[in-house]
Amino acid sequence: MGELSHVDDEGAARMVDVSAKEVTARVAVASGVVRTTAEVVGLLRRDGLPKGDALATARIAGIMGAKRTPDLIPLCHPLALSGVRIDLELGADEVRVTATVRTNDRTGVEMEALTAVAVCGLTLHDMIKAVDPAAVLDAVRVERKDGGKSGTWTRGEP
Amino acid sequence: MGELSHVDDEGAARMVDVSAKEVTARVAVASGVVRTTAEVVGLLRRDGLPKGDALATARIAGIMGAKRTPDLIPLCHPLALSGVRIDLELGADEVRVTATVRTNDRTGVEMEALTAVAVCGLTLHDMIKAVDPAAVLDAVRVERKDGGKSGTWTRGEP
Amino acid sequence: MGELSHVDDEGAARMVDVSAKEVTARVAVASGVVRTTAEVVGLLRRDGLPKGDALATARIAGIMGAKRTPDLIPLCHPLALSGVRIDLELGADEVRVTATVRTNDRTGVEMEALTAVAVCGLTLHDMIKAVDPAAVLDAVRVERKDGGKSGTWTRGEP
Amino acid sequence: MGELSHVDDEGAARMVDVSAKEVTARVAVASGVVRTTAEVVGLLRRDGLPKGDALATARIAGIMGAKRTPDLIPLCHPLALSGVRIDLELGADEVRVTATVRTNDRTGVEMEALTAVAVCGLTLHDMIKAVDPAAVLDAVRVERKDGGKSGTWTRGEP
Amino acid sequence: MGELSHVDDEGAARMVDVSAKEVTARVAVASGVVRTTAEVVGLLRRDGLPKGDALATARIAGIMGAKRTPDLIPLCHPLALSGVRIDLELGADEVRVTATVRTNDRTGVEMEALTAVAVCGLTLHDMIKAVDPAAVLDAVRVERKDGGKSGTWTRGEP
Amino acid sequence: MGELSHVDDEGAARMVDVSAKEVTARVAVASGVVRTTAEVVGLLRRDGLPKGDALATARIAGIMGAKRTPDLIPLCHPLALSGVRIDLELGADEVRVTATVRTNDRTGVEMEALTAVAVCGLTLHDMIKAVDPAAVLDAVRVERKDGGKSGTWTRGEP
Repeated sequence: MGELSHVDDEGAARMVDVSAKEVTARVAVASGVVRTTAEVVGLLRRDGLPKGDALATARIAGIMGAKRTPDLIPLCHPLALSGVRIDLELGADEVRVTATVRTNDRTGVEMEALTAVAVCGLTLHDMIKAVDPAAVLDAVRVERKDGGKSGTWTRGEP
Repeated sequence: MGELSHVDDEGAARMVDVSAKEVTARVAVASGVVRTTAEVVGLLRRDGLPKGDALATARIAGIMGAKRTPDLIPLCHPLALSGVRIDLELGADEVRVTATVRTNDRTGVEMEALTAVAVCGLTLHDMIKAVDPAAVLDAVRVERKDGGKSGTWTRGEP
Repeated sequence: MGELSHVDDEGAARMVDVSAKEVTARVAVASGVVRTTAEVVGLLRRDGLPKGDALATARIAGIMGAKRTPDLIPLCHPLALSGVRIDLELGADEVRVTATVRTNDRTGVEMEALTAVAVCGLTLHDMIKAVDPAAVLDAVRVERKDGGKSGTWTRGEP
Repeated sequence: MGELSHVDDEGAARMVDVSAKEVTARVAVASGVVRTTAEVVGLLRRDGLPKGDALATARIAGIMGAKRTPDLIPLCHPLALSGVRIDLELGADEVRVTATVRTNDRTGVEMEALTAVAVCGLTLHDMIKAVDPAAVLDAVRVERKDGGKSGTWTRGEP
Repeated sequence: MGELSHVDDEGAARMVDVSAKEVTARVAVASGVVRTTAEVVGLLRRDGLPKGDALATARIAGIMGAKRTPDLIPLCHPLALSGVRIDLELGADEVRVTATVRTNDRTGVEMEALTAVAVCGLTLHDMIKAVDPAAVLDAVRVERKDGGKSGTWTRGEP
Repeated sequence: MGELSHVDDEGAARMVDVSAKEVTARVAVASGVVRTTAEVVGLLRRDGLPKGDALATARIAGIMGAKRTPDLIPLCHPLALSGVRIDLELGADEVRVTATVRTNDRTGVEMEALTAVAVCGLTLHDMIKAVDPAAVLDAVRVERKDGGKSGTWTRGEP
């Protein structure tokens, strides 16, 4: 079995040296779900009118959140992101968030994709909390990653 | 039923004016769960030795994340946080994260507590992802808030 | 005639001590204009459809920019902003940006309002630059400020 | 005619994928003008003595502002800036700001140059506002860009 | 004897709750010394001509550094700084840095003053390192603090 | 003798253009010492128990500080750090901090290593200041640098 790669033999945290890793195109897709009420989803839908900024605010927050990842996650490397896309899907009583992040760099961008999902989901929470203080951000997870020595990883069936 | 407080009548996003709200002591408690494997929890436990920084790294990230909330969540007010505490509880195959945030200010600190939980949980994910890429951050939610005009709110039984 | 308040008698820059100033409600309104083409304004208008994020992106950037003011303007005090609103008005071949910022603090928020306008205007520039690389951000200026010892200041007729 | 490159077919904002673009040397030059009074320009000139920090403060703010561009402009890519230079020219009743930004990366640095100009100009405004609250930041615009597939673009005569 | 106030009984780091502390005027003075060569001090002195930005750059960096303290020092509270001043004194082969920071808040500003000194000193190092790579930042320490329950503390004679 | 590379012929600060420099593997090692009391070192040692977060907090702060260098040091280039490691060594009445920073980029990482040491040292100061307000951060300096045109530099014997 493995070890925690981010702590050394004595247990000290470190930013792992990736100098020797190859610069390759890498992609990561992460997702999450904001569980709320049908009423709130109705408000967000109606907000889908001209100047209805609620979903746009969440998308923008997710994209900017991806860029802040190395400021937030202590042992993450600063990376040159080459693209970020956030998809929001309104369900009956939930909003599904999917983030796709791309780079050409020495390490993967799972953490950037996960951070984008979390910040987007929390921004939705912020906007709906006066109506639904009980909303929950659930199932924040990596769906797929490509590139680098370890190749493609895809989440299996649950 | 309510409306989305963060968009105006025409749907434009705004940072709501809270000038007229009272400065009071406010507390928010949020929680979340990182679902992983028993093996990973074992590694984190063994990390509970001198210089075992994994859990400390996650706690520190959560505390610093609370302070970055207004940089991340577009419509959040910058607040003078007066205290942040993160509790981590190791279960059989999960880590439960709880954040308690305090302020003396004009608005509540739910978003700060949620952000602390999310950043702490993602930092755990970062440290364990080489061993368990399938880990999931679940159930990020407010447990309780006190203070301000709306008084105390506590999550009901599920 | 006056002096530059931000440098001392020997010319050294400083963050002026405002400890003795009163905490009062303060408001500042600033504006600016992005001059572009009728075609671009047409694109932005058509973007005023469901999920048309261009104007929302600029509004969000302006609001977040107001919060980053003390990180950007070296001698500005960090302030507890209590409200930020951005208004965008589409003209024939221009977009007018107006920012209104409120605080309860010891100094005024003109710089926060100006920064909101500038960041919002530059974000519009970013989104339209592939179509109109010659766009210009013009007339970034304070329109009005209220509160504090100096009371109300309003821009005179040009 | 073109489209807004930063929103997709459905109008959703995104950070455009530039993975396939070439890494080349790129330069952008932007400029702007702070219009004020002859008196203020006199103060800034006199400040041109030993330890006269006003112009230096504005230059430093502009350089640091260029580095903060991806934090401010939501859909900008984080870039490895390889050089930033700010030139300030005192006129009769105005200060002209010019920023030159260089990179070796996959996208241009117009936004970095524009942000440097805006932050530099606003910092000048901050330092002179006690003497001239009516100062205006005008004509913030790209003058020239080189590099990348689109080659050189130069602003035409007005 | 005391305990480490920033870790709880079980050793977990926390941002200490200061809600119950009084809002009072507080001042902290910190200092440090950049030890270099007489040649470098000569260069810095000659830089004391019009547009000689080296010392100004260091002062500005120190002032901005004070504002970034809660982003850098994990357990520091975000504070409303009401004034920052940096003094630079050129000696024979060294530069002495002194920072004075003021607030009206619930905790002291020693860390802000120390951070201002360190960032100012490192900025000097950055500017002189091509000439003197062996420069040393020494003796970064609090000289005096006033305000709050513990009153005034002054460094004793060495 | 040399000149200050970061100011031009007229004394204006600039971020030096490094476009023409080669991308190579570079390493810098910096160190510093927090001088305190034997009692405090005892507290830190005892903190070396499970969940004893004091030293981990300082390590994490140092690693994150390295990443914030271009935000703090005005004329530093933003760099793609490929690894950061912080070593803490407890002496009789002092803590020695060593930072090792790696990159594959166009300029060296001395400033990143020095910033890591300073932020780590100040974080230790923050945690011990209630017990030892007189602690001093001393001897912050580069020990060694490798890579780039200038090759290896090692501090000589004192």
